[in-house]
Amino acid sequence: MSATRYTYLGPEGTFTEAALRTLPEAATRELVPMVSVTAALDAVRGGEAAAALVPIENSVEGGVTTTLDELANGEPLMIYREVLLPITFALLVRPDTHLSDIKTVTGHPVAQPQVRNWLAAKLPDARWESAASNADGARLVRDGRYDAAFAGEFAARTYGLEPLVTQIHDAENAETRFVLVGRSARPSAPTGADRTSLIIWLGNDHSGALLELLQELAVRGVNLMLIQSRPTGAGIGNYWFAVDAEGHITERRVTEAVMGLKRSAPKVRFLGSYPRAGVTPKDVRTLRPGTSDGEFVKAVDWLTRIQDGRP
Amino acid sequence: MSATRYTYLGPEGTFTEAALRTLPEAATRELVPMVSVTAALDAVRGGEAAAALVPIENSVEGGVTTTLDELANGEPLMIYREVLLPITFALLVRPDTHLSDIKTVTGHPVAQPQVRNWLAAKLPDARWESAASNADGARLVRDGRYDAAFAGEFAARTYGLEPLVTQIHDAENAETRFVLVGRSARPSAPTGADRTSLIIWLGNDHSGALLELLQELAVRGVNLMLIQSRPTGAGIGNYWFAVDAEGHITERRVTEAVMGLKRSAPKVRFLGSYPRAGVTPKDVRTLRPGTSDGEFVKAVDWLTRIQDGRP
Amino acid sequence: MSATRYTYLGPEGTFTEAALRTLPEAATRELVPMVSVTAALDAVRGGEAAAALVPIENSVEGGVTTTLDELANGEPLMIYREVLLPITFALLVRPDTHLSDIKTVTGHPVAQPQVRNWLAAKLPDARWESAASNADGARLVRDGRYDAAFAGEFAARTYGLEPLVTQIHDAENAETRFVLVGRSARPSAPTGADRTSLIIWLGNDHSGALLELLQELAVRGVNLMLIQSRPTGAGIGNYWFAVDAEGHITERRVTEAVMGLKRSAPKVRFLGSYPRAGVTPKDVRTLRPGTSDGEFVKAVDWLTRIQDGRP
Amino acid sequence: MSATRYTYLGPEGTFTEAALRTLPEAATRELVPMVSVTAALDAVRGGEAAAALVPIENSVEGGVTTTLDELANGEPLMIYREVLLPITFALLVRPDTHLSDIKTVTGHPVAQPQVRNWLAAKLPDARWESAASNADGARLVRDGRYDAAFAGEFAARTYGLEPLVTQIHDAENAETRFVLVGRSARPSAPTGADRTSLIIWLGNDHSGALLELLQELAVRGVNLMLIQSRPTGAGIGNYWFAVDAEGHITERRVTEAVMGLKRSAPKVRFLGSYPRAGVTPKDVRTLRPGTSDGEFVKAVDWLTRIQDGRP
Repeated sequence: MSATRYTYLGPEGTFTEAALRTLPEAATRELVPMVSVTAALDAVRGGEAAAALVPIENSVEGGVTTTLDELANGEPLMIYREVLLPITFALLVRPDTHLSDIKTVTGHPVAQPQVRNWLAAKLPDARWESAASNADGARLVRDGRYDAAFAGEFAARTYGLEPLVTQIHDAENAETRFVLVGRSARPSAPTGADRTSLIIWLGNDHSGALLELLQELAVRGVNLMLIQSRPTGAGIGNYWFAVDAEGHITERRVTEAVMGLKRSAPKVRFLGSYPRAGVTPKDVRTLRPGTSDGEFVKAVDWLTRIQDGRP
Repeated sequence: MSATRYTYLGPEGTFTEAALRTLPEAATRELVPMVSVTAALDAVRGGEAAAALVPIENSVEGGVTTTLDELANGEPLMIYREVLLPITFALLVRPDTHLSDIKTVTGHPVAQPQVRNWLAAKLPDARWESAASNADGARLVRDGRYDAAFAGEFAARTYGLEPLVTQIHDAENAETRFVLVGRSARPSAPTGADRTSLIIWLGNDHSGALLELLQELAVRGVNLMLIQSRPTGAGIGNYWFAVDAEGHITERRVTEAVMGLKRSAPKVRFLGSYPRAGVTPKDVRTLRPGTSDGEFVKAVDWLTRIQDGRP
Repeated sequence: MSATRYTYLGPEGTFTEAALRTLPEAATRELVPMVSVTAALDAVRGGEAAAALVPIENSVEGGVTTTLDELANGEPLMIYREVLLPITFALLVRPDTHLSDIKTVTGHPVAQPQVRNWLAAKLPDARWESAASNADGARLVRDGRYDAAFAGEFAARTYGLEPLVTQIHDAENAETRFVLVGRSARPSAPTGADRTSLIIWLGNDHSGALLELLQELAVRGVNLMLIQSRPTGAGIGNYWFAVDAEGHITERRVTEAVMGLKRSAPKVRFLGSYPRAGVTPKDVRTLRPGTSDGEFVKAVDWLTRIQDGRP
Repeated sequence: MSATRYTYLGPEGTFTEAALRTLPEAATRELVPMVSVTAALDAVRGGEAAAALVPIENSVEGGVTTTLDELANGEPLMIYREVLLPITFALLVRPDTHLSDIKTVTGHPVAQPQVRNWLAAKLPDARWESAASNADGARLVRDGRYDAAFAGEFAARTYGLEPLVTQIHDAENAETRFVLVGRSARPSAPTGADRTSLIIWLGNDHSGALLELLQELAVRGVNLMLIQSRPTGAGIGNYWFAVDAEGHITERRVTEAVMGLKRSAPKVRFLGSYPRAGVTPKDVRTLRPGTSDGEFVKAVDWLTRIQDGRP
C-alpha cells in the first residue's frame, strides 16, 4: 500500500538511507531503495510511494542537478521536509584487516575528493577505483574485490564489514541536504523557521530580470537562502533558477513576494514551504522592521480605514 | 449651509477663483474668498465649508509650501480634485489708457518673474511695485494709484478695467495646479488616469530611507509623479516628503505599494486619489507587465491554488 | 576693491549679517548689505564682490527657493562655506517699554510662524503687522510706528533698542543654513567632514530617473543629505533637483558617483564641496566597507595587476 | 616544447577535440588528450602546455562544475578564448551493420538524456550501457563489445566505424561552450563583443550581498550573461559565484564595475576578458546611454574642469 511506502535513492547502506532513517516516521514506513533520483520520484508521481527522499545539495559538490531538474520539470511535486546529514566516511574492511594490508580502495566517485587528503597522508600507495555507490563499494570489499571501501559507518553491518577508521572527511562541515518529496498538497503550518523553494523561469532580458527577481524579495524583507541557475535546454544563455527564500508561504511578506515573482516572471513553480533542518525560530535572523505579519495586518487595517474615509 | 459653500484663496479676481470656476459644480455653490490658504482650509476643518480650492504647485515658482504644510499637519483633509490652469497675464488699465501712458505697474510678487522679460522689452522705463495679490493690484489701478496691473484677463470686468495686452507670459507652458480639498471621505472611483497623493515621514537614516521609499513604488511598477521635501521643524536635515504616485489607491499595485510605505515609514498620511486634470486613460503610460489589476488577481488565484495543494 | 568685499542679504541687523560675522575672515572684509539674494549674487558675478552670504535652507520654512534658483541658473557660482545659525528671536523695544505696554508687534513674515505660540501665550491681544525684514521691523519700532519687533538680539544696538525678552522660538532647534558663494574655483581641500552640492536635471522619465540618481550615490556608499525638487519652468511635472551628498568631490566614492550622475543625467551643475558646519570628522558616520579612498586605491592596484597579467 | 602544446579533455574523438580543432592555431599545435579537466589544467599550471581546452557549460546539462571549481581554486589561470560547438550525435556502427541489427548501444552518461527520445522512437528495444566517454564507447563498438555508439560523427574515422545515422539530438540548439585556458597574461584587445568572467566570493550576509553584486553591475550598465553558484565547502549555505559580464575589462563601465565588486566582495578572481564566440559587435545590445567609453571620458574631462574651478 503506497501510503506506507517511501522510496529513496539507493542502494541500501548509502547516506540517503541514513538521512531517511533520521525521520521519526521512517520507522513505520516501508523504505524502498531505487536505482536513481528519477526512479524514486517517478514512484511518487505514479502513486506507488507516498514520498521519496533524495539529495538536493551537497556542501562539497554543490547542487544535485538531477534532483533540481526533476523538480522543475514533469508533473509537479512538493517538498515536505528537509534533512541535513553531516558527511563523514568510515574506512570499511573485512575483519582482521590492518591499515598496512590495504592495497586497493573503492567508493563512489563523489566520495573521492572528500577523502583525497586523508588517503594521501595515510595510504599514499593504495590504488583507488570507483564504485557505483558507496554501498556498492562495501559490497565489493565483502566479495574480496577490494581491500577497503569508503562509506558511511552505518553500512558496515549490512555488508559484514568493520569500520577500521571513522570520522574521515577532508572538509570541515561537509554535509548533504536531502528533501522528502511528495505529491502537491497543502503545505504544513509555519514553524517560525521555514524555507520556501521555488523554480523561476526568467524572460529574455536575463540581465535585468535577475536583479528584479531579487528586488521582489528584498523590498519585502525576504532573505534569499540559495540561488542556482540551470539551463532551460534552449541554448547557451537561457536559464531557470532554483531559489530558496527564508520564511513560509503563509507569512505575508513571503506571500506578497512570491505573488510579485509570479506576476513578473514568465513562469514560477512553487516547490513547498517546510521547516528548516537544525534551525529553531530563535536562531532565525530578526525580521526587517515593517515585514512581520502583525505589521502587514496593521497596514491592511490602515488601508481599509483610508479607503473608507476614516484616516 | 456649509454643504453648498466652497472657500478659495482670495481675493476675488485671482487665478484661484478662475480655477475654481472651471469646475461644473462651482455654478451651484456659494464661492467664498478667504485671506489665506490656512483660512480657506480651516473653514473646511470647522465645517463652515464643504471644500476649499487652493494652489499647490506652480510650474514657475514650485510647490506652494503653505498648502503642503497645511495638508501634512493638523486635522487630516483630503484632495478630491485637481485643476490645471495656464497662467498668462493681461495688462489691465483704466479705459483709454495707452501703452505710452504707463509709468507704474503693479501685481503680486510671484507675477513679477513671470512678466519680467515682457516688461523689459515693452515698458523698460515703467516702475514696478508689488501688491498683495494680482486682484488687489487691479483694484489699486482702478483707484488711480498705479497705471497698470498684471492680472488674469478675467479680473478686468470685476474692477472696471480693460485688458490692454493679453497672453503675457515669459515662460512657455506656465501653469498652476490647484486642488479641491475637503474632509476625509471614501475616494471617488478610479478613472484610469488618477493621481494618489501622500505625505511620508522618513526615519533617521534619511539617506537609505528615501531610496527604499522609491523602491517600494518601483518594484510594484508605480510611477512617481512628484516628490517634494519639506522640513519637519526638528532642525536642518530632517524632512518629510510630499509624494504623488500615478494611479488610484484601489488599483492593486498602488494599494500594495502604499501599504509597503506605511509599514516601512514611521508615518504616512494619505491625501487622496483623484482624477488627473487634462489626462485621459489613453494618455497614461502603459503599465509595466505584471502590474495590472488583472495580473494581481491571477496571481492571487494561483497562490490560493498552491496554498491549497492544487498547483 | 572687490577682493575685500562680501555682500549679503540685507539689510543690516538681520540674521544673515549675524551669520556672516561668525566667519573669522569677515573681520577684514567690507560687508555690504544688498536688497535681495539676486542682487547679492549678481555683485559676485559682476566682480564687485568676492563672495556673498545668502540663506539656503531654514529648518522651519524649508529651502530658500530664490537662492536655489539663482545657483541653478545663470552664470555658474560655487559654494565655499556654510554657516549654521540657531534662530531665536528677541523682542526689541524702545527703552523703558514694559510687556504690558505692547499693543502692536512687527517682524518679517517668516518670523511670525516661529513666534506664534509665544505671542498667543504672552501677548494674546497684540496686533501683528509684517515688515520687509526683521531689521526693518526694528527700525519701525525705533521710529515709533510699532511698540515691539521680533528680530535677532544683535539688532538691538543698531537701532537703539533693548531686548525685552530673548531666546524666543516656538520650535526647538530652529536654525538656518547660510552659504558663502563665490565664483567658481578649485574647491578647498577635504576636511573629512564635507558636503558636496549639486544641481541635477533629470530626463523625461522622471519616475525611474530619480531612483537611478539615488542608486548612483548608494552603490558607491555616498549618503544623501538633502534633496529638493524645483520646477524647470517647462510645465507642471518637470523638475530639477538640488542634491547634497556627504563627502568631498576629491574623495573617490564621491568622484565616481558624481561622474556617474554626469553621464546619466542630461545636465549636472557642481555647486561645490565644502566643510560641514558644526561637524568634525569624528562625528561623521562610518563609511560603508569598500568605499574609503584606501580601498579605491587598492582596487585600482589590483585592476592594474590583472590587466597586466599579474593576478 | 610547451609553447606549442595544447592539452584538452580527452580521449581523442570527443567533442572537446572537435571544438579545439575549430581554432585556426590548433593546426600548428601538438594536441594532447588528458584524462580529466584537472589533468588538462594542471599541465598548463605546470608549464608542460601553453593552454588547455575544457568544457565549461552545456546547454542541456548546465555548468561543468569540475572546470568551474578548478578555475576558482588553485593557482590562477585565465580564459583566452571560447568555442561554441553544436552537439549532435551520430550513431556509429561497424561496417555493414543495419539498424535492425542493433541490440546494445553505448555512450557517455551525459549523452544518454540527449538521445533518449530518439532511442525510444527508433530503437525501443536496444539496451543502453554507459561508457567512460563517447570516444571510449566508439572503441568498444570497434572491439565488438556493443553494436552501436553515440558519439560525434568525427569519431567514426578514428575507430574505423561508420555513421549509420547523423544529426541526432533530442533538444534543439544543444550546444556546449568550451574555454581555452592559459596562464594569467595581459588580456587580448577588446573586439566590441566580449565577455568578462569572474569568480566572486560573497560575505556572510548572502541575501543582501548578491543583490549588491548585481547592482554594482547594473548601475554601470553592465549586463549579466551568466551567474552560477557553487559551494565554498564551508557547509550548506556558503557559496561563491561564477559571473560572466558583457564587455571587456578595458571598457570603462566594466573596469569600474569590476573594481566596485572587488571593493565590496571579500574576494574576486578575474578569469579573463575574451571575444564572444559567434557574436560580432553589431549583434551586441546597444549600450545604455551614459555607459560608453566616450561618455566616461567626457565625464572625466568635466570632473577635471570642475576640480580645477573651470565649470
